[in-house]
Amino acid sequence: MGELKRDSFTLPGESGYEALTLKMAEKWGADVIRDSDGTQLSDEIINSGYGIYSTICLIRSDNEWAKQNKDKLQQNFLMSFPVMAEGDTVTISPLKGFFTEQFTIDTHTDAKEFWQVFDRTTQKEVPLSDWEFHASSGLVTIKNTKKYHYYTVNFLAIRLWEEISMYNHITNNWGEKEHLMAIEPRYPEAQKQILSWLENWCISHPATTVVRFTSMFYNFAWFWSDKKNCRDIFSDWGSYDFTVNPIALREFEKQRGYKMTSEDFIHNGNYNQTHNVPSKKYRDWMDFINEFVVSFGKQCVDLVHRYGKKAYVFYDDSWIGVEPYGTRFPEFGFDGLIKCVFSGFEARLCAGAQGIETRELRLHPYLFPTGLSGEPTFAPGGNPKLDAQKFWQNVRRALLRKPVDRIGLGGYLHLIEPFPDFCDYIEKVTDEFRLLKSFHQSGKPYCIPGKIVILTAWGKLRSWTCSGHLHEHPEVDLINILESLSGLPFEIEFKSFEDIQTSGIPKDTAVIINAGTLNSAWSGGDYWKEETIIEKITEFVANGGGFIGVHEPSACDFSSQFFQLAPILGVDKDLGTKKCLGKYQYSVTADSFITAENPIITLPVCDGIFVLNEEVNVFAEVNHTPIITGHCFGKGRAVYLSGYQYGIENTRLFLRAILYAAQKEDAIQSYICSNPMTECAYYPASQKIVFINNTGDMQKTSVQTLEGKTFQVDLKPYDIEILTI
Amino acid sequence: MGELKRDSFTLPGESGYEALTLKMAEKWGADVIRDSDGTQLSDEIINSGYGIYSTICLIRSDNEWAKQNKDKLQQNFLMSFPVMAEGDTVTISPLKGFFTEQFTIDTHTDAKEFWQVFDRTTQKEVPLSDWEFHASSGLVTIKNTKKYHYYTVNFLAIRLWEEISMYNHITNNWGEKEHLMAIEPRYPEAQKQILSWLENWCISHPATTVVRFTSMFYNFAWFWSDKKNCRDIFSDWGSYDFTVNPIALREFEKQRGYKMTSEDFIHNGNYNQTHNVPSKKYRDWMDFINEFVVSFGKQCVDLVHRYGKKAYVFYDDSWIGVEPYGTRFPEFGFDGLIKCVFSGFEARLCAGAQGIETRELRLHPYLFPTGLSGEPTFAPGGNPKLDAQKFWQNVRRALLRKPVDRIGLGGYLHLIEPFPDFCDYIEKVTDEFRLLKSFHQSGKPYCIPGKIVILTAWGKLRSWTCSGHLHEHPEVDLINILESLSGLPFEIEFKSFEDIQTSGIPKDTAVIINAGTLNSAWSGGDYWKEETIIEKITEFVANGGGFIGVHEPSACDFSSQFFQLAPILGVDKDLGTKKCLGKYQYSVTADSFITAENPIITLPVCDGIFVLNEEVNVFAEVNHTPIITGHCFGKGRAVYLSGYQYGIENTRLFLRAILYAAQKEDAIQSYICSNPMTECAYYPASQKIVFINNTGDMQKTSVQTLEGKTFQVDLKPYDIEILTI
Repeated sequence: MGELKRDSFTLPGESGYEALTLKMAEKWGADVIRDSDGTQLSDEIINSGYGIYSTICLIRSDNEWAKQNKDKLQQNFLMSFPVMAEGDTVTISPLKGFFTEQFTIDTHTDAKEFWQVFDRTTQKEVPLSDWEFHASSGLVTIKNTKKYHYYTVNFLAIRLWEEISMYNHITNNWGEKEHLMAIEPRYPEAQKQILSWLENWCISHPATTVVRFTSMFYNFAWFWSDKKNCRDIFSDWGSYDFTVNPIALREFEKQRGYKMTSEDFIHNGNYNQTHNVPSKKYRDWMDFINEFVVSFGKQCVDLVHRYGKKAYVFYDDSWIGVEPYGTRFPEFGFDGLIKCVFSGFEARLCAGAQGIETRELRLHPYLFPTGLSGEPTFAPGGNPKLDAQKFWQNVRRALLRKPVDRIGLGGYLHLIEPFPDFCDYIEKVTDEFRLLKSFHQSGKPYCIPGKIVILTAWGKLRSWTCSGHLHEHPEVDLINILESLSGLPFEIEFKSFEDIQTSGIPKDTAVIINAGTLNSAWSGGDYWKEETIIEKITEFVANGGGFIGVHEPSACDFSSQFFQLAPILGVDKDLGTKKCLGKYQYSVTADSFITAENPIITLPVCDGIFVLNEEVNVFAEVNHTPIITGHCFGKGRAVYLSGYQYGIENTRLFLRAILYAAQKEDAIQSYICSNPMTECAYYPASQKIVFINNTGDMQKTSVQTLEGKTFQVDLKPYDIEILTI
Repeated sequence: MGELKRDSFTLPGESGYEALTLKMAEKWGADVIRDSDGTQLSDEIINSGYGIYSTICLIRSDNEWAKQNKDKLQQNFLMSFPVMAEGDTVTISPLKGFFTEQFTIDTHTDAKEFWQVFDRTTQKEVPLSDWEFHASSGLVTIKNTKKYHYYTVNFLAIRLWEEISMYNHITNNWGEKEHLMAIEPRYPEAQKQILSWLENWCISHPATTVVRFTSMFYNFAWFWSDKKNCRDIFSDWGSYDFTVNPIALREFEKQRGYKMTSEDFIHNGNYNQTHNVPSKKYRDWMDFINEFVVSFGKQCVDLVHRYGKKAYVFYDDSWIGVEPYGTRFPEFGFDGLIKCVFSGFEARLCAGAQGIETRELRLHPYLFPTGLSGEPTFAPGGNPKLDAQKFWQNVRRALLRKPVDRIGLGGYLHLIEPFPDFCDYIEKVTDEFRLLKSFHQSGKPYCIPGKIVILTAWGKLRSWTCSGHLHEHPEVDLINILESLSGLPFEIEFKSFEDIQTSGIPKDTAVIINAGTLNSAWSGGDYWKEETIIEKITEFVANGGGFIGVHEPSACDFSSQFFQLAPILGVDKDLGTKKCLGKYQYSVTADSFITAENPIITLPVCDGIFVLNEEVNVFAEVNHTPIITGHCFGKGRAVYLSGYQYGIENTRLFLRAILYAAQKEDAIQSYICSNPMTECAYYPASQKIVFINNTGDMQKTSVQTLEGKTFQVDLKPYDIEILTI
């Protein structure tokens, strides 16, 4: 594969290790060398003829300016911890419990303009006339309180420490090193400063070919407490909480004609986690922020372009408002998008973004001594080759389905020296990557016809993600489903309820999937009260479509059914209010297409599931509770799964559930590996079948073409085999 | 104990077995002989000098009259099974799916007066002008329907078969035997007929000393389907659904000034199960029915009294409207109340009723060949002695705390002949019973001071019950708690939320218990939005009271907390909407008073429970979810249990939880057995300590008096020991 080398790979270089840098660039076929947080590139590296990536973060770049403009730092709303009234007055210290190196109270703005005080026992707002904020003491006093009620203050905070700087500083014990602050780019003075800093930077970095923005202006929400053993008060990868400040709130009101209140962000202290159904107002706010981020972001990108450099954006950290799946994303003019990946769905997230030329993955493990949970990686006791194999196994199956343009690593290059097997393995990975990319360039891989539509409250905007990494919220059904789907031979589309209401279900849809728990954005909450949604999905299934519901699909405590699609699914859930209603006594259908390859089924159980009638097939149960059912409805079919966890075996189960729902059971015969521990992709244009082994063991597998020819291969652990047919 | 014989025991006699009847009456010390369903008493028995109980059921007694007055049979509302619109008209056969030997459509009343048709997709009522009932075909046609929506008809049914007659008939294959019908006593003609039948009956049964009513007029709700393998459509021991009919509906409107709709009973097809929070309207209806049942019931009782007989009422079957814990119950003038019992809480249910002279228990096993689940009892393979031991073990511990006046058996006496060990054991039971009763007559047993208040939506009206037997809904936390409490040395009081709102918490309350799941009557649902409830309970605990919350106590999806008493409990539950909020990382307190005697803890887990802060003690956890916590609040204490299942070990755990919450840990030292497999009661007036063995094994146990003296006993399996101190 030698001729493919020196392409599509980004190497983290390290000053002081020039020989190692150039050696690894050669071995891994790098065409670009990058700096990383904490590393620099020496002139020797910069002038070695490789492309040069440089990372910048605009909002925390000029800390001197930030220190001189503390009234122009970024802000957000916080809810104080509740305080019980012991009489008719209550005093609250709003910041109590929060990490005061991160937050301070905004004393520049009149509290009465934006703050709200609530009686959280009655959920009633306390009139403005009944509370006062005393800037001198930092306390709020509330009068006319009711004894034994709990009160909270929604207040505007200023952030004193940019969160990524804060996290790295504290995790790595940076001691006296300066705390970086995030400036608010809505202030005209801040915009001017950012653009002038960026221009100077471009001038002083002539060797840089690609400027990597980390990322734009607003970090995902991350509130810290003052307790070292319970750092997170709130943490969500997709939340817009950090975009709030007086100037934005006032502009929003002017532009949109109505006012956002603090409670629109606070939501009883739950804030705006991506897992919850977003309100209409919150979606408006997101749009308003996105409009600004794109508009000012474009000025930054244009400036970079003027200096003959490319502009890439990192799809993490300060990515809020960037929205690569939003309609405005192409307007930025970015040349590339970079995503760091643990999982297949993250590779698809990057691969599916439109409006850029280059999609690049940052692979794990990073070249750091320890991993995310503090376990050794590039340190004694670590096995970075095995880590790399496992991460690559996750990502590779997604790349079989949909390509990206580049991969790369990050961190401290010198750490690899004691791990030659890792170095050899990465060489193999880069070769594999280039080869797979070349197949995609010749033509798309074979897909089973018919679109799979994922129906959520977010729709396309949150394609291929449920906020954050799989290991952060492993209990979320949909993220597990996305991980399975990332490597399956289907075309996937993400639709919102509004999409269905306004444009209906895409004509070529084979199966709709709705997966999640009550009132989650993934299940849909009150959208299921909308009759047009019910009508359109019912019509779709009645006319031959497939529907897969997972955990609490279409759940909404409304009318006669809990699952609003219960008649289609053939199952419903009893919350206890139907305890005295007789439940149909089903028997389990032992042999079924869905479970044919899963002698042991491990799906999370959903308590209270019951079967409506004798027309429902129960394919598996746990403790007399159905966990997999099938139901014919009109000309279509519905499948219910009580929950979903990603795994190799469950991926096969899910593939079969889709084919059953789509009434395409025969599709399992063609280009699907006989051994579920392995997968393959067929590239008709290249006449190649790529087999991958998703395990650390040897595997035998075979596959049949559409024409009925069978091919068999032996696969080494985590290995790949390519057949020309 | 011979001198106590011939007292307090009711023997089921059997014609044809006169010698056996008299022999067992002597052996078991019966003072009364009864007939049973399917047995009769011969003159020889009737004239043998014993009191005679006779069972009657007024509403199904004169089937000839019922047949001639089919427009005066009992009725109820039913909801048709939902039907999907395939166009702009829908035809529904309301009875489809129901057991047509039980139900027929009421064609005597104008459908438009009471029926309602709903679009269950939108939960909107269909205008009267858009539907028609066609009496000739029995069909409802609906126009202007929306395609793919589901429609239901709430309709009035007439019941053709009284449910107990129906159940016995079908269970015992009575074949051609006549179906008994239940007449509606609101019709003046029916009342006249009932009274005249009863008078004739009294005249023709001169030997009867006690008339046992089975029970009054309305059976608990029991709707059957046409499917033999799924008989129950709805079944609830406490529901008033069978009290509904046109005459009652019209009278209600006249008397109460507003109208009950069909939907007030149908509730989306969930009907009015006792486990759900009753609406204000439904409570009004219950009161209206109770008023009638007491008023007409009193006429029946008075008539019986006029013939020199006593009147007892059976607390099952047609007991709806009788309400032994209602304020009107004493007005009936009943002499006795009879309850059949499997469990301790049922014994307390009977023992605690006021306004009657005699409380009597009907013990299990009944003298039938098979038990409830078809297992052999008095048949080859059965072990009725062991059955009797286990049931008596349940009931006896309750009778240690609170006495009843009589016990007895039911069924076919001749079946006991092959089981002499059973006969000997019942002799022992009757002797035990009389002895315990005599202790109570001398004075109450010692109780740990301070009242335990059970807080539910029903309050006193549903004292000592959660509707039905323990084995019917074993997942209901409160019924399990009641079973434990039935034998514990506490004074128990049942309070509703209205009680707390209007009268506050009783002064001598030590601990309040709230146990159940969201929106159950036992937890309380929307009552937890009432600020006065929160205020009064908070005040109570802040001032030193105890609170025990089980499963989803004070649960209501409202404001900032899910458990509205989260600040008191120190724990709350995340329904998924707080996924991104940091949770306090507790550590488990290994040694605690509550768990001191339970090395292994088996409580149901409640997913999503999290601890609020470091002030909460976690005493036990399962899979990182707390299952037992304690929290000091003001001067008081709260305990949270994730669920509760009755068992001997858990009873001890619950006792300790109460003492911990009440800050009365020292009370465990006095009159509490050292061995949790045993229990005791101390009767200060008699100077007796009664020890019971709650297991089938030998047990050693000891107890300490308040003065510090220790007594030790050895107990044979299921046995009792009495010490005079």
